[in-house]
Amino acid sequence: MKKDWDTLEVLKHARHDWLNKIQLIKGNLSLNKVDRVKEIVEEIIFEARQESNLTNLNLPQFASSLLTCNWDQHSFQLDYEVKKTLNIHHLDDQLLAHWTSRLFETLDACIEKFQENHLSVSIQADEKETRFFFDFSGILTDKSSFLRFLEEPVDSNTKIVVSAVSEEEVSFEIFTIPSQRV
Amino acid sequence: MKKDWDTLEVLKHARHDWLNKIQLIKGNLSLNKVDRVKEIVEEIIFEARQESNLTNLNLPQFASSLLTCNWDQHSFQLDYEVKKTLNIHHLDDQLLAHWTSRLFETLDACIEKFQENHLSVSIQADEKETRFFFDFSGILTDKSSFLRFLEEPVDSNTKIVVSAVSEEEVSFEIFTIPSQRV
Repeated sequence: MKKDWDTLEVLKHARHDWLNKIQLIKGNLSLNKVDRVKEIVEEIIFEARQESNLTNLNLPQFASSLLTCNWDQHSFQLDYEVKKTLNIHHLDDQLLAHWTSRLFETLDACIEKFQENHLSVSIQADEKETRFFFDFSGILTDKSSFLRFLEEPVDSNTKIVVSAVSEEEVSFEIFTIPSQRV
Repeated sequence: MKKDWDTLEVLKHARHDWLNKIQLIKGNLSLNKVDRVKEIVEEIIFEARQESNLTNLNLPQFASSLLTCNWDQHSFQLDYEVKKTLNIHHLDDQLLAHWTSRLFETLDACIEKFQENHLSVSIQADEKETRFFFDFSGILTDKSSFLRFLEEPVDSNTKIVVSAVSEEEVSFEIFTIPSQRV
């Protein structure tokens, strides 16, 4: 279920996330762990850069889905990495965002709640094609439904390849061939 | 001119603001000024609490105007303080937000750009009435127009009182008598 966030809500969630980081700094300062604080500061800056890279992909709806994912009541935590900043022009943002939203719903329905469920997304984009590597780790209660979802065609120039399936892990990759080449 | 912010834009601005604070921490850490870092952390937590208090006033449009003010291209910087957290039910949020937006526009037109112009807002709310104290300090190029704006009636149960006018300062107060008592 996609939720439209308004300014106050977005700021509230963002403030909550940032304050958690500040509290981590504060806690380590009070223990005089200055080196740990320096590490945390570097981690925060790294994360902010990923967020900024994601925002600059020119896929606003898809980026919003990922950025607000952990604020929705999902049964998994999401993290992401964007390897290269690139202004993507060859992808259908709306289609991708819609697929991502269905992925989140399907995952919620197929995993055990209140477990350490984790979805990592790694995005590699260049001028020719974009690859999204997804890695789920956690407790799947309905693996076959989830794999069936991954077999559904997205559109004519987008392919999904499942690269690993085990008891507690599913890895898959989506790559999109630029439409102008099809 | 009111701007509708979307999720990505709000997050981008919020990230920029928070990263400035993190950079301040980082800079002081690299100088081994640990006590200064502790002060900065406390300041950040205080500011976040003000932001949270403002959000919880039950005046969403007014709160959004203040929270996003410094992201617009105004010729002044805004800060605010909310003395008490209270869920306000006796104020017309839309009217107040509209007046605030006109205040910002009028101020922009009456002050010298690229100067240290500053608008402080202090909000005191209780069950019976809400008082908004505004304090402008900076370079006014058209004081009379600005004072004329403050003389315009807002609505029947909202009063503006100008408490101080000097070369580089204008202080005024808006207070609203609860509508049910009128």
